[in-house]
This record gives sequence, structure tokens and C-alpha cells, in this order.
Amino acid sequence: MIPAKGYAAAIAKAPLAPFQFDRRDAKDEDVVIDIHYCGICHSDIHQARDEWGGSIFPMVPGHEITGIVSKVGSKVSKFKVGDKVGVGCFVDSCRECEHCKAGLEQFCEIGMSATYNGREQDKKTPTYGGYSNKIVVDQSYVLRIPDNLPLDAAAPLLCAGITLYSPLAHWKAGPGKKVAIIGLGGLGHMGVKIAHALGAEVTVLSQSNKKEADAKRLGADHFYATSEKITFNKLRGSFDLIINTVSMPLDWNAYLSLLRVDGSMVVVGVPEEQVPIGAFSLIGGRKSLAGSLIGGIAETQEMLDFCGKHNITSDIELISIQKVNEAYERVVKSDVRYRFVIDIASLN
Amino acid sequence: MIPAKGYAAAIAKAPLAPFQFDRRDAKDEDVVIDIHYCGICHSDIHQARDEWGGSIFPMVPGHEITGIVSKVGSKVSKFKVGDKVGVGCFVDSCRECEHCKAGLEQFCEIGMSATYNGREQDKKTPTYGGYSNKIVVDQSYVLRIPDNLPLDAAAPLLCAGITLYSPLAHWKAGPGKKVAIIGLGGLGHMGVKIAHALGAEVTVLSQSNKKEADAKRLGADHFYATSEKITFNKLRGSFDLIINTVSMPLDWNAYLSLLRVDGSMVVVGVPEEQVPIGAFSLIGGRKSLAGSLIGGIAETQEMLDFCGKHNITSDIELISIQKVNEAYERVVKSDVRYRFVIDIASLN
Repeated sequence: MIPAKGYAAAIAKAPLAPFQFDRRDAKDEDVVIDIHYCGICHSDIHQARDEWGGSIFPMVPGHEITGIVSKVGSKVSKFKVGDKVGVGCFVDSCRECEHCKAGLEQFCEIGMSATYNGREQDKKTPTYGGYSNKIVVDQSYVLRIPDNLPLDAAAPLLCAGITLYSPLAHWKAGPGKKVAIIGLGGLGHMGVKIAHALGAEVTVLSQSNKKEADAKRLGADHFYATSEKITFNKLRGSFDLIINTVSMPLDWNAYLSLLRVDGSMVVVGVPEEQVPIGAFSLIGGRKSLAGSLIGGIAETQEMLDFCGKHNITSDIELISIQKVNEAYERVVKSDVRYRFVIDIASLN
Repeated sequence: MIPAKGYAAAIAKAPLAPFQFDRRDAKDEDVVIDIHYCGICHSDIHQARDEWGGSIFPMVPGHEITGIVSKVGSKVSKFKVGDKVGVGCFVDSCRECEHCKAGLEQFCEIGMSATYNGREQDKKTPTYGGYSNKIVVDQSYVLRIPDNLPLDAAAPLLCAGITLYSPLAHWKAGPGKKVAIIGLGGLGHMGVKIAHALGAEVTVLSQSNKKEADAKRLGADHFYATSEKITFNKLRGSFDLIINTVSMPLDWNAYLSLLRVDGSMVVVGVPEEQVPIGAFSLIGGRKSLAGSLIGGIAETQEMLDFCGKHNITSDIELISIQKVNEAYERVVKSDVRYRFVIDIASLN
């Protein structure tokens, strides 16, 4: 076993605190990674507080991991010691089902192994995430970070980046397409950068005008405050694609009215409550309301290469791991522009 | 003016009763049609009772019209006297907007002229529907009925037929695709016939087992009663496409769970109340919830030609127009297999 250290929640809602544990020894196909940085995703907080139910404790959160390969198993061909690598939301899947074979491991029929708060494919061994100094991952679930991207600001690409890239690519955001991003937070700001780089005309729909300058700087062509009623009249029937990154309760029917005929609204944020939908909101224009969940390994690598080519990373606030509980409070209040990243060197 | 007679609702919820009115004289592009048959669509009842609001009275309902051309204007090239023709849910649109030009007149930006309970493109003259002996329609909004189809059983194709054909074609029902139809009524039974003819594997999801034999006779490969809880466990993740024809309140999340990854559920029935949707129902499998509204003129003709080729019509109960109020009561109770069609000869 490889001794590791990190920060863990001992029980639901407990503050995260130092935690010692073991990583498995590297098997033939394994890559041992020295973690340098780990982003803080809102879902880390939901799970550490058991807000979705079924959490496994002690929990070492973190699935926006970047680092450097420190050792490789005897059959590892894709990576070598010293490589810049990343690990995203899952570290394994069944590899046999139709979805795994199609590169949609996030929908594995047996169930993917989440990077933390999950279990290995033996369905027993708990997984521990990136708020730690080392991780051991099968090479097929390790991503390559482009050389030109700094490891700290690249970390949020592994979840926030792919969460936005996947629907933008799947629903064909690009030149001639009008794309709206609802919410300018950790997810939304990645959406603006990626949609802009894909060539789409990008509108940010944010509650107030506070982030207008930021949105434009990030690549938005237009910005509207949704607190102003005129916004919904003015933008009626405007967009080919709307990505909703907001997990607060919103009137989805009002946003569906902003779609053009044949337009799609894709939900990537998860409100706690169910959202009422009127059938006419969909029927009047052959509109779709869809969902999207991160992305598969191949698409995540495609996203990283795309971000390398366009020099896209996250706007981050780098913190020491000792500040993680404080950072959680600030994430809940949306008080971060736009992603906290933990400097794992602070663990030592 | 051309004197016409029909049945109309004088005010909301009034029983339909005999009504005399005028049709316009045929203009250059107009086709005068002797109406032979008109189907009864559930939306006739909603509108005659003003259940959707904004109804225009007196109202002559009916938008599943078949008949024979009795006269044509001087510039009519598409039809001649004696042709078997149909008229569907609209009789005009702006013809200039992007959607009209794309053959999606049902989404006309200016607003299509509904066949009844609407207004001509002058936005003043009210329209009167097919519970009448004559109608005058611009040739661009008249459909050709294939010679091999009887005019009575073909009438419901003009609304029920296209309402199902359009989403089945748009979402690519065909060989290798598993399609479920929720509800076996006027809409659903057309869906089964058309999806089967398109080559899809068809499952009917009906509340009870009562209609199983009918479903199989109509072309369904499988039938499940949704009142049996085991149905939802057994069919989890099964379908590429679900068409929901039911306007009663249903748990849409339960039906979304029956979709495969990347599957779509398309709503063509309109529940009175909004329906709560959980984001996870969509996110867990990149699923879509969509809506579809009848179809454009070109697609309606395509549907009629397809039905001609496959000898598809509606299963009907032919009634005299004097029975229309009684038929309304039975439609509300789903007591018809599967569509009432009014024999307009009974008007005389």
C-alpha cells in the first residue's frame, strides 16, 4: 500500500479535517499520480453534507485533479513518469457494456466508479478523491493535460470544463448558432469560454448586472439580467441552445420561451426540487428540455486538447487546504470568481 | 358569398346546434370543397368549451376534413373538380417567415390561421371548421388524399395522423428503433400503425390490459399495463423514443426512466396542469423531453402519401352530425375506438 494523506469529512456535515489513508500499490495498468491541485466542485459540498443521500464516510472529496505521474505499472503505455495528467469524475467503469464501449462511461450500465464517494468495480472498496497528495488510477481513466495549460487553472476542466463542453459539442454549438448560458458561476464561466471558442454567439443570462463586465471579458457577446422582466420579452425565440447551469429553482418555462423552433435547453445543474413544466412550453416550437452529465473519457481528452489549443482554463482562486471549510461556505454563497482550487502542496 | 350550413357552439359549453353561415367566394387560388367527412378531435371539445381560453364564438369546430373539390379558382393548378382532398389544422399562414419558408407553417411567426376558432391572415375574419358542408381554402393549404384511402377513415389523418407521424419521422422511428406509445386512443392508435409501418419495434403503454388485443391487431409488438408496477422496473432503459399522447396527469419522470441513453420522450398531449420534472430524470442518460405540434403542409402530404402506400387509415365510428354532442361526452370518457367521424351527408 502507498500511504497517503488528505482532508476528509468524518461524517455528514462535519468540517473537513486531516486524514491519513492508503492508496493501493500500482498494478500493471496503474498510474501513480502526485496530486498538485484539486478544484472544489459544488457537488463536493452536496456529497460531504450527504445532501443527495447515500454518502460514504469518511469521505475525501475532489474530482478536479491535476498532477504529475510519479510511477507507472509494468503495462502502462499511455503515460510515463513526469507527465502532466488529470483525473475527473470517475476512475473506472465496467468497460464491457454498450455505453462503456461507446465512450459514454458516465452512463455505464454497471455503474462507473466515482472518483470519491464511490466504490471500485469490486463494488466494495471505497474511493477517495483529490483533496489528497496521491492517487492511483488505471491508465484508461487518466487524462493528459496539454503542456501549455497550468496545472492549477486546468484542474476545474476535469469536471466543470467537460460538464459544459459535452452538451455544447453534442448539441452543436458553433458558428451561426446562438447559445445562452444561464448562470455565471464555476460551470457557467467555463461554458462562456468554450462556447465562444467553438464559434457560437454567446449570451449570458445572469440574475443581476453585477457580472456583466466579467461575462464580456470571458467571451460573451451579450449579457442580460434575468431580474429585469423586459429580458424575457426581448429575447423570446432567440436561442438555438440554452445551457442551464443553475441549481437554484428557476421558472424553466420562461427560459424555454427563449428558444427558437427546434431549440434545446440542456440542464447541467440539479435543483433539489422537481421543476413544473407546461406541455405548451415544448410543443409550441418542437423544443427539447434535456440533461447532460459530464462526459466520457475520450470526450474529456478531446475537451482538454480543445482547451489546450484555445488556451482555455478556469478563472480560479488558489487556496491552501486549511481553508477548505471556509471555501465551502463561500461556494454556497456563490462568493468565488469562479472556482476554488486547492494547492495540495499546502498539505505538507 | 357561398351559403354554408353546419353545427356550431353559440357560446362556451353550449351544445352544438345547426348554424347557417357564409363561405367566401372562391378567389383565384382558392379551392371550394364539398365536405364529406370530419373527424372529432379532443381539441374540438376543449375549444368549444373554452377550456384553453380565448375561444371565438359562434364556433364551427372540425379540422379533420375530407371531401371532394367542387370548384377551383382561375389560378389553381394543384387541384381540379372531383379530386379527393383534405384540410387539416390550419388554412393559411404568413408564407414569408423563416418557419413558413421551411415548411413548418404550424410555427408561423405571425401565427397560422387555424381551420376554426382562428382568424384569416387579415387577423379579423373568423374561421369556421369542418362540421359543415363546404369550405373554401387556398390551394397551398389543401392536401391530396391518396386514391386508395376511403374518405371517412382518412379524415383523422389530417390531425391525429400528422400529430403522430411528425414526431415519429423527426425523431427517426424506424428499423432497429424501439418506440413506445403512451395511451391507445385517437392519437395513440395512429401512432401504433405509423410506427409499425415505419419499421420500428412498437410497444403500447396503456393504463390497463383492456386494449391489449387491439394494440396487437393495430401493429404493436408488445403491450404493457402501466397500472402494474412491475412494468416500470421491467422496461427501465428500453426505448429510443416514447410518444406521450395522454393529456391526463402522468408521472413523466417514471416514463423518462424507460428511455435508453440519448432517448427522447415527445409530448403531443397537453395536460391542464404543469408536470413536475426532476433534473436527474434527464441528466442520467442525456435524455430529452420534447414537444411536437401537428406538422407542416409538405409533411402532412408526405404522411398522407405514406399512409396511402401502407394502406393506413384510422379506426373510426361513423356518426350523424345530430349525434355530435353525445359523441363529445363519449370522447371525454375515452369511449370510442378510436375516432368519431361525422358523416356530413347527415346535415342535409
